[in-house]
Order: sequence, then C-alpha cells, then structure tokens
Amino acid sequence: MTFYEKLERHQQKLSKLAHLNAICGWDQASMMPEGGNEARSEAMAELAVMHHELATASHLAEWFAHAEAESLTKEQVISLKEMKRSWQMSNLLPADLVEKQSLTGSKCEHAWRSQRTENNWHAFSKNLEKVVELSRQEAQIRAEATGLSRYDALLDIYEPGMTTKELNKLFSDVKSWLPNLIQQVREKQNAEKVLTPVGPFPTEQQKSLSLEVMTKLGFDFKHGRLDVSVHPFCGGVPTDVRITTRYDEEDFTSALMGVIHETGHARYEQGLPAQWRGLPVGEARSMGIHESQSLFFEMQLSRSEPFFDLLAPLASDAFERRDDSALSSKNLTLLNTRVKPGYIRVDADEVTYPAHVILRYEIERDLIEGHIEVADIPELWDKKMMEYLGLTTKCNYTDGCMQDIHWTDGSFGYFPSYTLGAMYAAQFMAAMRKEMNVENLIRGRNLQPIFNWLDRHVWKKASTLSTDQLLIDATGERLNAEHFRTHLVERYLK
Amino acid sequence: MTFYEKLERHQQKLSKLAHLNAICGWDQASMMPEGGNEARSEAMAELAVMHHELATASHLAEWFAHAEAESLTKEQVISLKEMKRSWQMSNLLPADLVEKQSLTGSKCEHAWRSQRTENNWHAFSKNLEKVVELSRQEAQIRAEATGLSRYDALLDIYEPGMTTKELNKLFSDVKSWLPNLIQQVREKQNAEKVLTPVGPFPTEQQKSLSLEVMTKLGFDFKHGRLDVSVHPFCGGVPTDVRITTRYDEEDFTSALMGVIHETGHARYEQGLPAQWRGLPVGEARSMGIHESQSLFFEMQLSRSEPFFDLLAPLASDAFERRDDSALSSKNLTLLNTRVKPGYIRVDADEVTYPAHVILRYEIERDLIEGHIEVADIPELWDKKMMEYLGLTTKCNYTDGCMQDIHWTDGSFGYFPSYTLGAMYAAQFMAAMRKEMNVENLIRGRNLQPIFNWLDRHVWKKASTLSTDQLLIDATGERLNAEHFRTHLVERYLK
Ligand SMILES: [Zn+2]
Ligand SMILES: [Zn+2]
Repeated sequence: MTFYEKLERHQQKLSKLAHLNAICGWDQASMMPEGGNEARSEAMAELAVMHHELATASHLAEWFAHAEAESLTKEQVISLKEMKRSWQMSNLLPADLVEKQSLTGSKCEHAWRSQRTENNWHAFSKNLEKVVELSRQEAQIRAEATGLSRYDALLDIYEPGMTTKELNKLFSDVKSWLPNLIQQVREKQNAEKVLTPVGPFPTEQQKSLSLEVMTKLGFDFKHGRLDVSVHPFCGGVPTDVRITTRYDEEDFTSALMGVIHETGHARYEQGLPAQWRGLPVGEARSMGIHESQSLFFEMQLSRSEPFFDLLAPLASDAFERRDDSALSSKNLTLLNTRVKPGYIRVDADEVTYPAHVILRYEIERDLIEGHIEVADIPELWDKKMMEYLGLTTKCNYTDGCMQDIHWTDGSFGYFPSYTLGAMYAAQFMAAMRKEMNVENLIRGRNLQPIFNWLDRHVWKKASTLSTDQLLIDATGERLNAEHFRTHLVERYLK
Repeated sequence: MTFYEKLERHQQKLSKLAHLNAICGWDQASMMPEGGNEARSEAMAELAVMHHELATASHLAEWFAHAEAESLTKEQVISLKEMKRSWQMSNLLPADLVEKQSLTGSKCEHAWRSQRTENNWHAFSKNLEKVVELSRQEAQIRAEATGLSRYDALLDIYEPGMTTKELNKLFSDVKSWLPNLIQQVREKQNAEKVLTPVGPFPTEQQKSLSLEVMTKLGFDFKHGRLDVSVHPFCGGVPTDVRITTRYDEEDFTSALMGVIHETGHARYEQGLPAQWRGLPVGEARSMGIHESQSLFFEMQLSRSEPFFDLLAPLASDAFERRDDSALSSKNLTLLNTRVKPGYIRVDADEVTYPAHVILRYEIERDLIEGHIEVADIPELWDKKMMEYLGLTTKCNYTDGCMQDIHWTDGSFGYFPSYTLGAMYAAQFMAAMRKEMNVENLIRGRNLQPIFNWLDRHVWKKASTLSTDQLLIDATGERLNAEHFRTHLVERYLK
C-alpha cells in the first residue's frame, strides 16, 4: 500500500466517526427527549476526543512526507493537499480543549432551548461566557499558528482565505447603500396591496407540501429525509442528508421557504462527487459556498413570480384552498418579497438580512478579539439594531441576542458566510443567465438545466478548487458584490 | 486514582461508544432512508472495531490484578467481577472477526427487509450463510475458551449459566404437555363467541392510544420515545430508551400489545440503578430476565380482564367507538387470550409461543453445532411447524424461516430467552401475589405497588446478582417452570 493510500484509508476512518457524530447530532436536535441530553453530550464529547486523536495522529507527518514523494495523479495531488491542510488545522488544538468545547457547547446549546423561551439572558450568559472563553483560547492558538488575527483565524475555518480586512471593506460598502435601499423599497412597497394568508395551516398539510416541493427541487429521498427541530438545519451525511424545519400553523410560508433553503444545502451534499466520498477534497468548499447553494434555491430561484406560479397551485391543493386569493401566485410573490425590518434573522427578507449579519459580525469579531465582553452584548445588539434597522431589543433577549444557535456551541466566524453566500449566489445566477433563460425554464417546469449548471460548476467541484478559483471557473471573475446589489435593485426596485 | 477507579473510567468510555451505537442502530432501523445503509453499516462497523479495541485492551489484565488487591466495598467487588467478566468475554474474539460480523450482519439485516417481503429465500440464504459461518467461528472460539459446547458458548452471552442440557430438559418437559394443552384450550375456546374489531384503526389514533397506555404503565417520556420500525424493539440507552412498534390499520391490538411489551423492557432499562450507570454491574442481568419484564407487562399484567377493564375505555375513546361491542372489555379479553396456532412468532399467543421458540432453538442449536446447514432450514422449519403446530410453511419463507430479524445479524442463542422470560415472569407474578392482591390493585387503578415490587426485586438489582440468586431473592426458589404451566392452566382452562 502506498502512503497516499494509507492516508486515504485513515481519512475514511475519520469520515466514519464524523458520520456517527452527524447522526447523533441530528438526533439530539430533532428526536432526543430532554432527559437524554446529559449522557448524549458526554457520549458525543468522547467521540469528539477520539476523532481529534485520529485527526491529529503525529505519524501522519511522515506519511505526508512520503506521499508527497510518490507518483500521484493530478487529482491525488489536490486530495493530498486537502488532507494535509485538514490535518494541520486539526493539530492546532489540544485534545482537552476540544473535549471541553464539545461538552460546554452541547450543554449551552441544550439549555438555550428553554432559556431562550424564558428570555433568561442571565442564566444563558453564564454558559455563553464559558463558551466564549474556550473560543478565545482556540482563536489565540490558531492565530499564533497562522499569523492571522484571532478572529481571522476562526473565519478561516469556515471561509478559507477570507479576512476581516476584506469583510470590513465588503460590509462597509453594503452599509453605505443598504439603509437607503431599504428605504426606497419600503416606499415602493407601501403602495402594494398584500393579503396575509389566514391560518390555521395544519402541520400535516405543511409537511406534505414541503415533501412535494422538495421532490420538485430534486431532493433524493433515498438519501435523505425531512424532520422537525427548533432551529432548522441541514445535517447527516452525503448518502443520508437530514434536513429539518419548524412549522408555524399560522404561517406556512416560513417553513416552506425554510425547506427550500435547506433543500439547496441538501442538494449540494447529495451532489458531491462519489469518487471522493469521505475525503476532505470531496467535501463542500466552504460555508459561504454552502450557503450560496441554499440561497440560490431560496432567494435566486424561488422568490420570483415564475416560481410562485409553480408553487401556488401546490399550496392551494395542499391546504384545500383553491379559491383563497391570499394563496395566488401574485400575492405569494408580493408576500415573499416583502421588505420589513424585523428582529429575527431567520425570518428576515433578503434585503434586510445583511444588516443582521453585519451586526453579528461586528459583535463576534470584537468579542473574539477581546474588545468587548459577553455582558456588553445586549446593549451593543440594541444599539446596532436601532442604527441598521430602527428597532430596539431592550430587555427582549428572546428576539435579540439569544435568537441564534451559533454562538451557543462556539461557532464564531460563521455568520459572515450567510451574506457571502448571498453574494456568491447572485454571482452564480448572473453567470447562469448568460447560458440560459432561467425564467423561461421555470415557466416550462424544466428546472433540470438549472440543477445541471450547479452540479457541474459547484457540487461536483467539491473542494478540488479554492473558493476564488471555483468562482472564476464558474463565473469568469472573483467575488464581485455588485451582482448582489444589482439583483436587489432588479428584484425590488424595478 | 486507584486501579478500580481507572477501570471504572475505562468502562464509562466503552459505555459512551455503546451509546452512539445504540442511537445510530435505532436510527438505522426506524429513521434511515434506504440509500443511507451502506455508509451507515461501514460507520457502525468502524465503531464496533473501536469498541472492541477498547474492550479488549491488554493492559487491563494488570489493572484487574491491581484492583483485586485494593480495598474495595462489597459492591465494588461485585462491580469489579462484572467488569472482568465483560473484559474476558470481549477478549475472546479477534478484531477482524468482530468487524466482519458487524458488516455482514448489517448488510444481511438490511437486505432481509425487502427480501422477506419478496419471499426471496434464495438471495437471503446467501447472506445468511455468511452470517452463520462467522457465528460458527465465534462459537468455536468461545467454546475453546470456556470448555462449553459451541452452542452453549453462544447461549452464555445472552443467558449466563444456561446450558443446552438444561434447555433440552426444560423444553422436552414443555413439549410433553404443550400439544395437549393447546388442544384442550382450543376445544374450550370453540364455544366462545369473539368479535373481531373491524378496521380501519388510523395509525395516528393508534399512536395516541399507545402513548396514553405507556403513560399509565409509567414509561418516562423525559427519558425515552416511541417510534416505528419493521421489527419492534427496545433500544437506546437507560437515560433515553427508544421503543418501536408497527401499526396495522386493520388490527390495533397487535401494535398495542407490542407497545405494552416494549414498555416492560423500557421500564427495566429506565429503572436500572443510576449509581452503576455505564458499568457492567449496572446493566440488565440477562436477556431472559429482560424478556421476563416485557412479558410480565404484556402477559402477566395486561392480558387479564381487570386490565382490559382499564384499557377498553381508552381504546373506545381513542377510536371514537364508544358503542362498538368488539371493543368491550370482555371481548378484548377473549380476543387477546385467543389461542390459535399460527405462522408468525411475534403474533403468537402465549400458549403456542413456546412451540415457536423450541423450533428455533432446535434449528439454531444444530446449525451452530454443525449438524445441519442453512440450506436445510426451510425443510426442518416446515417439518417442525407441522409437528408442533400442525401448519406447513412449504415455499412460504416470508411467514416461515425468514420472519425473524435475529439470525440476520448473527444473534444465535437468543431465542430461548423468550420462553425463559415467560417462565421467569410467571414465577415473579406467583411471588408477587403472595404479597399483594394484584387483580384488586389493577381494578383500583393503582399499579404503583406492582411496579415497586419489580423495581425493588429486579430493576434495581441490575447485574449485582447471578440470575439464580436474583430469582431466589425475589421468589424464594430457582427457576421452576411449573409456575408457567400453572399460569397457562389457570388463565386458559379455568
Ligand atoms: Zn443555510
Ligand atoms: Zn421482548
């Protein structure tokens, strides 16, 4: 066996542990009864330690050296590079820190589920402080090893190559035109008459509709399923993708658009190349690219009148409301492109969404860099919400700084991916339009060419290219936020 | 840290891996889409290898030696003995055999799900041959190490201390009176008028009823849940017990009695002592004792008129059939104590059930001892079914030798536990009756004293006593099959 082959086998073992973690994590969020959490957290922490021990095995240094001297195909060279990068990243953190993070994060996340409902910032912040402390330790270690700043070192986990410097530039650009754009859109939409569909929309019917729409969007049910969790996510493994949603019987569109979003994530996972399964090179390129696929499905593809022409009859049938004009294609389009500043990021429209991300980015950046503390969050949150969206969150932690799951388990550096994803998605759509008439395809109920384009340019590329190169190959240029602005102007001001 | 403490810590680690295995196994049977199976099987096989490596760690030999010289409490001495027994048992098998068994069993089981429906013995037998071959290897290794016969060595895994010699004696006794008893009961029941409830009984209503009955039986939903699988089971971990059932819309009693059965298993698990959690001494004593708890719930407790007085109104309400005389207490009692030889073990009444077990016992015993081959099974099955129950299974593999999940993953030696469990359960009930009037308690809707008795005499004992000693402490005598015969005569011929 060559050293390259030994490394592949080692990675496959890691991938199997990741599989167990993905399924037990999915179960924890969507199936597990409350009393099971303590033992589950401990079991998953043990798994994280075992994964960490394998991922950091010191004898791999020698294997990498040998493998690099072996005669490899061009593809194996790329795969080897990604295995080495992954090993180096893993080696940065000591096992006891990893274990503490898993345990502390899991406990914080679990408690958050009820604390959020109770608006209990006091209790939550105690847990969060422990999580932040461990994330700062992680950031410090990563920073020292990479020469990046502490926050940049975390950012690099989710979006390799992205920096605070570039984000500050991108986001201050957005901040320069976004408030004005929101204002203009709000004025334009003032004149629109939009009907709010009146519930109840029974959960069972919403579920049927979700499954039907997932089918239309090409979700492969032989390799995945849909369930319910407090905070929707896409988990599992490429051969068994688990997406979740939450149903609100008064508002079916929130679950429906959420399902479409997660279906975008799922198709990326299901579309990853089988020949690299279990290897780093076969994984999704970055969190931003992942989000670009969900937002491509949810925003670029679905929130348009041609798509609602397709969706509206399905919804009318599902709820047996064929004469309800609130469920007409036209009304659903207006409803789902409605722009209104609100408290909740996951319920935000695509125009105000970047404001939510920028707010979180600025807070977590300063938190990790040590410029602010956990106790400062509520006041900063309130101040920035006022500034960007004109809303106060004073004393309202539930709809303020306790609304997201991300920080509970220490995923600092993740939030920017959402807006990067929106920008990538707009750029992909702009490139796709040069090759095909997307609206006509949707009207002709022929989505396959759209999926094929994504499959060819994104899904099947997995991590064989850098994010930059993936964008250049697919669209002819590096990330260009102008496509996002153009998309918003086209959709909301024309 | 003492060596005893080091051993405890090591066992806790093993217990965490077992936790992951239990949840992923539950998921595989109740949630996983078909296309996820290959990767899941591989991931679980990897976990089995890791568990095996830890469970067999050679340095434990020294730890055991040191710990045995340490000053330990009486309880720690027992715990140490169980840890050592568990380590010795694990050390018998080489890692590659364990991995092959996990993989082969998992694949055989998964394929069986569709092959059974298709009555495809040919395809199934190819997989089963591989499973049997590996089980024979296992039996051979265990036999050499323990001095037991090959089948006895497997039996010892599930029912420590039980032997072919004792089973042959017990079962030939049963065979001596069972056919005649069945005959007498059949004649007596000929005169009874029993109404068959007419479906449909919608799955959702059956589920509600199941949850309600589980609640009455003290199932702790903070530490467990109910789902659906092809073959019902009780899985998960003591802090998160996962039971499953399958619903038949034409017959609600099969799922209901199944749920009661699994609830018995679940309460044993949920009732295991918290202070020994994760350690061998804190686990269920044996599969036979486990089955005694499920059968205590399903047979001793539930299939009696006082209990159906309690159940019948719940069922009438659940299905909104308050005037359906087929759902009266009297009729449900007759229906659920109906004796009729049938093909399917899991649907069998408690009188004919032992015949199904003895048939399987005789076949698997001879299969493991090498006296017969997989290809011989269908003919033997048919012959014994004719002999014991007067039914032919020629060419009907679905309802014959392909009906059970057990052999698919190599669980040879397990079947006797069912009838041992029935015998233990009858003996527990006989002892309990000396302390309380069970019927009056049920009529008074006060089940707590019954559960308390089981908790004190069985659940909280976990593995601190041998099976023999547990029986003696709880009932004053060793296993005495006469209690079982008396129970059948009392219930079915009086
Ligand atoms: Zn997303
Ligand atoms: Zn059972």
